[in-house]
Amino acid sequence: MTDTTWYLIYISAMAAGALLFWVWSRDPKGVPKDEYWVAMVIPIWSGLMYFGMLTGQTVIEMPGRDPLYLGRYLDWIVTTPLLLWALVSTAHFRRHMQRPLLAGVIAANIMMIVAGFMGDWASQDWAKWTWFTIGVVCLLIILAITWGRLRATAYEQGDDVGRAYVKVAAFLSLAWLGYPLIWALGPSGVGALPIDTELALFVLLPIVSKVGFSIFDLYELRKLGAVKPGLMPFRGQHHTSP
Amino acid sequence: MTDTTWYLIYISAMAAGALLFWVWSRDPKGVPKDEYWVAMVIPIWSGLMYFGMLTGQTVIEMPGRDPLYLGRYLDWIVTTPLLLWALVSTAHFRRHMQRPLLAGVIAANIMMIVAGFMGDWASQDWAKWTWFTIGVVCLLIILAITWGRLRATAYEQGDDVGRAYVKVAAFLSLAWLGYPLIWALGPSGVGALPIDTELALFVLLPIVSKVGFSIFDLYELRKLGAVKPGLMPFRGQHHTSP
Amino acid sequence: MTDTTWYLIYISAMAAGALLFWVWSRDPKGVPKDEYWVAMVIPIWSGLMYFGMLTGQTVIEMPGRDPLYLGRYLDWIVTTPLLLWALVSTAHFRRHMQRPLLAGVIAANIMMIVAGFMGDWASQDWAKWTWFTIGVVCLLIILAITWGRLRATAYEQGDDVGRAYVKVAAFLSLAWLGYPLIWALGPSGVGALPIDTELALFVLLPIVSKVGFSIFDLYELRKLGAVKPGLMPFRGQHHTSP
Repeated sequence: MTDTTWYLIYISAMAAGALLFWVWSRDPKGVPKDEYWVAMVIPIWSGLMYFGMLTGQTVIEMPGRDPLYLGRYLDWIVTTPLLLWALVSTAHFRRHMQRPLLAGVIAANIMMIVAGFMGDWASQDWAKWTWFTIGVVCLLIILAITWGRLRATAYEQGDDVGRAYVKVAAFLSLAWLGYPLIWALGPSGVGALPIDTELALFVLLPIVSKVGFSIFDLYELRKLGAVKPGLMPFRGQHHTSP
Repeated sequence: MTDTTWYLIYISAMAAGALLFWVWSRDPKGVPKDEYWVAMVIPIWSGLMYFGMLTGQTVIEMPGRDPLYLGRYLDWIVTTPLLLWALVSTAHFRRHMQRPLLAGVIAANIMMIVAGFMGDWASQDWAKWTWFTIGVVCLLIILAITWGRLRATAYEQGDDVGRAYVKVAAFLSLAWLGYPLIWALGPSGVGALPIDTELALFVLLPIVSKVGFSIFDLYELRKLGAVKPGLMPFRGQHHTSP
Repeated sequence: MTDTTWYLIYISAMAAGALLFWVWSRDPKGVPKDEYWVAMVIPIWSGLMYFGMLTGQTVIEMPGRDPLYLGRYLDWIVTTPLLLWALVSTAHFRRHMQRPLLAGVIAANIMMIVAGFMGDWASQDWAKWTWFTIGVVCLLIILAITWGRLRATAYEQGDDVGRAYVKVAAFLSLAWLGYPLIWALGPSGVGALPIDTELALFVLLPIVSKVGFSIFDLYELRKLGAVKPGLMPFRGQHHTSP
């Protein structure tokens, strides 16, 4: 398949995801509205960025090298903090979000994306792999918080929140481990995967890790919200006047 | 007139606006201080960005095409969220701001500016007009929220807040509809307007939609704040300790 | 010494600083955890940006001119708002932070960094020095708030907070005055300092103004937190559920 076909598949999947979350938001089942808004913004932004690669505007041709897909990083720098917001928010379903914890995860995440971009763009091998290592360390910090304090926070609110969180966190963790793997094996890394395969994988994996994740996350939250309508999360009320 | 003259007119208007809002902030008349700060930051940032175009630094020359005025987008990406903050804040004059609503409007707005930039920069016509359409859809979403939930929120706080909001929102809506019109008619679009005329319009319209809007908005807020000093907005108190 | 040596010295100092703040965070002595997180993020981000200059990726070669060290501005645009957050937060040790005040200082600061970058990049002298003047005005606004409302706020919480704040604010003020001085004397300005000297100074001064500042700030906060454990700042509690 051509690049254009892959991009169109991706954009269609993102549009379908955004539409689904909009439909679900009409019947929120005790889940705060902002969960739906974030789930919609993620695929819309990502679809826009892939459209920018389809038009060729954010694919930087570099002489004697494979092109640099700037659009991927412009996608990730916006969507990955939002995905982490959704994860942290799931871990706080029945209490106020701990903002310093969210800020810490997002700081590690932004450094991870920046390191990925710098490594992709680096021309010397030692620089590329140092950046890659920095990015992997950032991912490990994110995973440590995900499975440490966030998991504990979720269980403090009841076994049902804990179990839902663990499922959602496992999904995200596995999907996110795929990115450095593809990066390292593809033309940005050792070059074991040809650029066409990398492109296809960077279409399929993000569909799973963005729309797939949000479907799973909202599905679990809707189960939690529907079962105990008397235990509404604080956040919903918090934003309106007292 | 030369480009430099237009830029100097613009920068003077921005400086005069910032000065006026500073003077007004000395006698706030029951309007929270942050309204004045935001009204001052908008023209100061915008003036800086126009100075960057005056020096030529943020005007990107593109071979065989009209130049790309990057500075405009660097202006808008900062000032338009602040203008929307002022609008949303006016709709919440006597209650806490609904942050998810603000975040939603600003998300649509950022996508609108990004689409405008990508469309301006696009070299193929199909790409340009797809971006333009995306930008217009974002503007329609902003207008739908402006005239839907925000208008309803304003009227819930009394007819006086409702009426003030409607006037201010009408001003902003009309001014913002001018941007895609100039864009589409100018060299970024079909090219019916010569680049000099587009430049002049992108000096005059922003003076109205930035400083003009803030004058009108603050004027209405000061009337509201002065008439009912007993009904101070929450925001003022909210930021200080309990 | 070569550029690489200087960069390695800098990166080592940043790593040592981040490690120290992590160790201190294990025994927080009544200081909110977010103070330690911010103190850690500052040198980590700065170290990454200097590594990007070491690899040459963010040093822009400009024909017929000294290179433009883009990495410095990418460092500052992130770390200086965080340093100001730490300063404002010290001035609010025993009360909620006044967010509009923080936003105002950070707005002036972002304009200062943008003006510095534009002035560095400008090719005409009149443009360079206009940008420089704008940057200095922004710095003066920051200093006015630092020594005006922030100082008054700190003293309202007791003489001990006031005295700690004044020491910390004096440290930051002196260090920050060094930047425009080096900028104006170096190749970005009049060219009295050779580029090697400027590079060395832009390694040594930031070590003092980042890691040095955070050591001093946390040291003062730990004294305040340890002496009066009954008067914990609000912020700590504020983030957890009621």
